[in-house]
Amino acid sequence: MLRMSTLFLRTLRDDPADAEVPSHRLLVRAGYIRRIAAGVYSWLPLGVITLRNIENIVRDEMDKAGFQEVHFPALLPKDAYEVTGRWNDYGPDLFRLQDRKGADYLLGPTHEEMFTLMVKGEYSSYKDLPLALYQIQTKYRDEARPRSGIIRGREFVMKDSYSFDLTDEGLVESYMRHRAAYIKTFDRLRMKYNIVSAVSGAMGGSASEEFLAPCETGEDTYVLCEKCGYAANVEAMTTVVAASDASGVAALEVFDSPNTPTIDTLVELLNAKFGGGYDGSMTLKNVMLMADKTPISVLVPGDREVDLKRLQANLAGVNDISVFEDADFAKFTGLVKGYIGPQDAKKNGITVYADPRIAPGTSWVTGANAKDKHARNVVSGRDFTVDHYVEAAQIKQGDACPKCETPVIIDRAIEIGHIFQLGRKYADALGLTVLDQNGKSQVVTMGSYGIGVSRAVAAIAEQSYDEIGLSWPVEVAPAKVHVVATGKEDAVFETAEKISADLEARGISVMIDDRRGTSPGVKFKDAELIGIPVIVVVGKALEQGNVEIRVRRSGDKSEVAVASAVDFIAGLLPTLS
Amino acid sequence: MLRMSTLFLRTLRDDPADAEVPSHRLLVRAGYIRRIAAGVYSWLPLGVITLRNIENIVRDEMDKAGFQEVHFPALLPKDAYEVTGRWNDYGPDLFRLQDRKGADYLLGPTHEEMFTLMVKGEYSSYKDLPLALYQIQTKYRDEARPRSGIIRGREFVMKDSYSFDLTDEGLVESYMRHRAAYIKTFDRLRMKYNIVSAVSGAMGGSASEEFLAPCETGEDTYVLCEKCGYAANVEAMTTVVAASDASGVAALEVFDSPNTPTIDTLVELLNAKFGGGYDGSMTLKNVMLMADKTPISVLVPGDREVDLKRLQANLAGVNDISVFEDADFAKFTGLVKGYIGPQDAKKNGITVYADPRIAPGTSWVTGANAKDKHARNVVSGRDFTVDHYVEAAQIKQGDACPKCETPVIIDRAIEIGHIFQLGRKYADALGLTVLDQNGKSQVVTMGSYGIGVSRAVAAIAEQSYDEIGLSWPVEVAPAKVHVVATGKEDAVFETAEKISADLEARGISVMIDDRRGTSPGVKFKDAELIGIPVIVVVGKALEQGNVEIRVRRSGDKSEVAVASAVDFIAGLLPTLS
Repeated sequence: MLRMSTLFLRTLRDDPADAEVPSHRLLVRAGYIRRIAAGVYSWLPLGVITLRNIENIVRDEMDKAGFQEVHFPALLPKDAYEVTGRWNDYGPDLFRLQDRKGADYLLGPTHEEMFTLMVKGEYSSYKDLPLALYQIQTKYRDEARPRSGIIRGREFVMKDSYSFDLTDEGLVESYMRHRAAYIKTFDRLRMKYNIVSAVSGAMGGSASEEFLAPCETGEDTYVLCEKCGYAANVEAMTTVVAASDASGVAALEVFDSPNTPTIDTLVELLNAKFGGGYDGSMTLKNVMLMADKTPISVLVPGDREVDLKRLQANLAGVNDISVFEDADFAKFTGLVKGYIGPQDAKKNGITVYADPRIAPGTSWVTGANAKDKHARNVVSGRDFTVDHYVEAAQIKQGDACPKCETPVIIDRAIEIGHIFQLGRKYADALGLTVLDQNGKSQVVTMGSYGIGVSRAVAAIAEQSYDEIGLSWPVEVAPAKVHVVATGKEDAVFETAEKISADLEARGISVMIDDRRGTSPGVKFKDAELIGIPVIVVVGKALEQGNVEIRVRRSGDKSEVAVASAVDFIAGLLPTLS
Repeated sequence: MLRMSTLFLRTLRDDPADAEVPSHRLLVRAGYIRRIAAGVYSWLPLGVITLRNIENIVRDEMDKAGFQEVHFPALLPKDAYEVTGRWNDYGPDLFRLQDRKGADYLLGPTHEEMFTLMVKGEYSSYKDLPLALYQIQTKYRDEARPRSGIIRGREFVMKDSYSFDLTDEGLVESYMRHRAAYIKTFDRLRMKYNIVSAVSGAMGGSASEEFLAPCETGEDTYVLCEKCGYAANVEAMTTVVAASDASGVAALEVFDSPNTPTIDTLVELLNAKFGGGYDGSMTLKNVMLMADKTPISVLVPGDREVDLKRLQANLAGVNDISVFEDADFAKFTGLVKGYIGPQDAKKNGITVYADPRIAPGTSWVTGANAKDKHARNVVSGRDFTVDHYVEAAQIKQGDACPKCETPVIIDRAIEIGHIFQLGRKYADALGLTVLDQNGKSQVVTMGSYGIGVSRAVAAIAEQSYDEIGLSWPVEVAPAKVHVVATGKEDAVFETAEKISADLEARGISVMIDDRRGTSPGVKFKDAELIGIPVIVVVGKALEQGNVEIRVRRSGDKSEVAVASAVDFIAGLLPTLS
């Protein structure tokens, strides 16, 4: 039983200065977490219990699915990560350190390499597969911008699983088993979520989906088609392009365009010069970038920006993308800043990537590669060549669903899970093979699956708080019932103690506010802030032999006789989500 | 239920090449742990369960004692550790790293600083005290010689508690509460242990005791008086010295002593020159050391070495002790190597520390500070001055108990717990004060208490293994019952499944060996190696409607009817330790 009189807890009246999102604000104010350093938090008693409740639900669902728990260290030698290339690929996101002998170590951001080697160490036959292992473990990522409290931290708790199969079909089955276990887990955590298509990105591999918990302050953006149910994170959203016939388009025409530093001013000039009907979507932006050390230009319609996250996710094998700086422009004298068009790209040694909208036959207004000059009737495939198509243009609300062409909506969310068909990348690199039915050596195919356990504390808070505080689902809350003794009479405290003891005897966890000399107002405010689902007020009503039972989330109140309070609560709890 | 047919487990026939101690050897062979790097291990499924069982017992006893669980990160900014000096004091034992911005971090070896700051952040009044907080958390120490598997690792799980009190008496009470909780914990873990006096050492503070689990391969040495029960680790053992009267001792006499490079040759010369009766204990060794940057000489009887660990533990405020090298001798030209005596120490600028045996009035044979010359009748306090007495001489079996003077025995053990009255060192350094009853600011006094949770897995194994494998206590074992199906008949497997399901329904955890095509011999060997306390053999006896129930540790066997097997086991388990 948690006792407010001795609990290591001081709620705060004021929001912490660095809190950007409600979960962060409330978890600090209600005494669940405290900041130690950027992206590094400690957990106070209420936080420890809540985190463990979530952890236990995750573990239980993994065990029920037949996955086996193991546990790796966080401190890992670099060897295996060097073999797969991730020692370098991770860049500054990886915490690296040396031991007293100068040997290189890292703090594990995720454990694909280690699991691959573990299975390699124990198993050798197809008969040993399929296998799925998991761990619930502390992970480290040196985020460039740790933020939103425990949503994007640098030390955090994750459940990571890995599946091992002989065949591609086996991998799909293992993937679907994890998908089902994740659905059960998040349902039990009472989270709202969408399962969205994701791009596999730097991890390599094929199919990949994310579990996204919609919330206003989420830092992930995703696309949802309310008609057909298509859902994708922004990186994975694809573009539907209608075919174009350019046979009727007039020849490329260069025209003077002084004082058109923006798309808007260019459109104004176009409409003044050639008659109305032009808009930004008919112009072509040439965004110059360095992709690792290769100069590329990315073509997008003038009414859209290049989304660097989308570009990065869809440009396989490129680790670092940066915008052209003056020094880069100086190296390519053929590029006239503000007037670049793709017509001279080959001459200038630039690789051209284009959004699918720049399909062959489409016609554009773009720079003419000369100061104060633009060109119109610039036709893709006729007047310039696209080297590679890539999904890189910014997604907008109302873009066409790639499945049914209905305008999509865009929403924000927190990523709470990710499931991923890795394939044979890690097994290949680290030599994880088994003998098949014919005694032939086969590379194992793998899946990788993650749930952000500490992040889930914040994601659940984001989805369930209200203006007065936190409001936990029953299975997650640090206690199921908060018994508040108000007043000064011993009878009040005795009744509160009795009800609390009886509830605990029924297996219902209790936090009792047994503080003497604290005002009822303060106690109620604390109870609302802390967010335990059922609040029992022992006070005024006791004269009539009653207590008041409040449901934190709905605000519903019932006056119930002391003698039947425990039964009432035992009946109430299963009805709450 | 654990199923051998799918369990991620491959037992090994051979001992791992790097295993020095039985627990390491058996935990690897039985598939509990695997080595990742020096002192860094991963846990396979059986290991995870065993570790968690221990963790849960520790947590349960802490909770019952009223201590509150919190959780700190392992990745800690250096600030607080710099304030207390431990950022430097820890030397190469500390894992240090920098984040992407170049800020300094460490991987927490223990969390005194962080707990002090946490309490400072929340509490401000004497009314808030006493308080005791704990965490079960992963810790890091870059040991010079990680060894014995998980006994001395570089990443390990510890339970660390901290108590906070206003008064010294309060600290003693908190200390005793922890002591009692530790006794309950280790009793529940079925460990044999001694509670021994320890020296507070580098931690600062006053009283301190260690819980030592005796075992042959333990790396801690302790002293035990079988008569009065006195127990101390070697660092804390004190020396009983009889008073001496030097009034009758003749004047100091220098004599020629060529060719006496060792105490033995010196004693031989003494007996030849001055008649028999001399032995090594009558000579005086001058061991030259650098204590941080101060030259010191440590005087011990010639038949004992200086125990550097004892010296270090008893020299408050000294971080680094090293033996004089030739370069050091070169700086002190008054020191004649091989012929040093304390007579000229002051002249030479050397601070003299001495073992208590070199009490005032005792008379010695020692160097005469001249080549090939020694001196006899060199009296402490008359012919030389001791600046400080220090317990630094090697302890020997048979030394006098400091309480009752009975000869002590010396034994080896693994340190499994440490309780410690820290005092106000950390609160002073970090400004943890509360207002007392009179509104006056008072520095809080602290205790610090640790249990090696992952180490306990090995310590329990060390105390309970036998020649055929591990042999766990009931509450610690990865399952309580190991049901082994031997033979090929479906009836065997069906009965094994039925008994297993019935046991689990009774809340008794089971591992079933349901492997088809594995020989009974292999199954028995595995069961013995894995060490689950009760083994049920379903096989030959089934023809008579019986199963065989074996107690792993005692080897006791009973043939029991299938129908009463579950009841039999339920009755048997509480009788086992």
